[in-house]
Amino acid sequence: MKNLEEKTLTSEKIYKGKIIDLQVDKVSLPDGGTSYREIVKHPGAVAIMAITNEQKLVLVRQYRKALEKTIYEIPAGKLDIGEEPKICAKRELQEETGYSANTWKKLVGFYTSPGFADEFIHLYEASQLTLGETSPDEDEFVERVELTWDECLDKISSGEICDAKTVHAITLWKLK
Amino acid sequence: MKNLEEKTLTSEKIYKGKIIDLQVDKVSLPDGGTSYREIVKHPGAVAIMAITNEQKLVLVRQYRKALEKTIYEIPAGKLDIGEEPKICAKRELQEETGYSANTWKKLVGFYTSPGFADEFIHLYEASQLTLGETSPDEDEFVERVELTWDECLDKISSGEICDAKTVHAITLWKLK
Repeated sequence: MKNLEEKTLTSEKIYKGKIIDLQVDKVSLPDGGTSYREIVKHPGAVAIMAITNEQKLVLVRQYRKALEKTIYEIPAGKLDIGEEPKICAKRELQEETGYSANTWKKLVGFYTSPGFADEFIHLYEASQLTLGETSPDEDEFVERVELTWDECLDKISSGEICDAKTVHAITLWKLK
Repeated sequence: MKNLEEKTLTSEKIYKGKIIDLQVDKVSLPDGGTSYREIVKHPGAVAIMAITNEQKLVLVRQYRKALEKTIYEIPAGKLDIGEEPKICAKRELQEETGYSANTWKKLVGFYTSPGFADEFIHLYEASQLTLGETSPDEDEFVERVELTWDECLDKISSGEICDAKTVHAITLWKLK
């Protein structure tokens, strides 16, 4: 296997934000040349494939400013500093949907956009759900929706479900 | 269904880069409050699930500076301005792996990180492959690898395959 590593020559901090930071690294390439890499730093996140006792998938409608539209997504949220992903998953499911779950299972983890960002999502399955109160963040407005498998497929076809982690969770649900 | 739209009050351009731009929008929230949204603008991309005549998946090893490691991914690349995704998919498959394909099929499309970025990936399936020469970009160093289904699963377990679009393509391959 080839050594493809790129060594950092310099690293410039461009922006330090509420959720993401941006830096631009000058790197040495495997052939001795140099280039620049634009890198978004993100604290990481969890997402939850929650299945109700009626075999429906729990989703939230959420306005995504980056897309300028409201889309359907599985519940998700970013990790607080030092927070264990499973604790975060339980917190986010309750905050966004009001559900708590008796059964939790880690499914898979993945980087969402390794070409320019270090965001890593831990995907969990939650079942045996009990509905309580929601408690979203103060700048977070979401609406809970529960969809059957066929309704999920219709919304993938129509483009209302167009989020990678959500499409992936629905595909995994199919495999069960 | 609730109206969850966030209207733009101001938009500040923070950075204009080679691959991504960054802006911070001040928005009005559904309850009348205000907040800030950090938004990464990306031109969009394609990814290709290419299956060889020996029923192996074509991947590339690539160093990802954002992750500081070399990972396995399906071939992918960003859209040139105004480029049709299918033309881009054919170009990227040839550039990164040397393969051309007789059969192309659009599988699905998704936003990779709608919480902070507008990147949209068009995922294609390519088959009936013929191997030619590679022609990577001048700052792109990749190594072609072909893996069986079982080898893909092993590398998901070991964490060497940890990229969302690649894990998704492997899951779709399983469903075929």
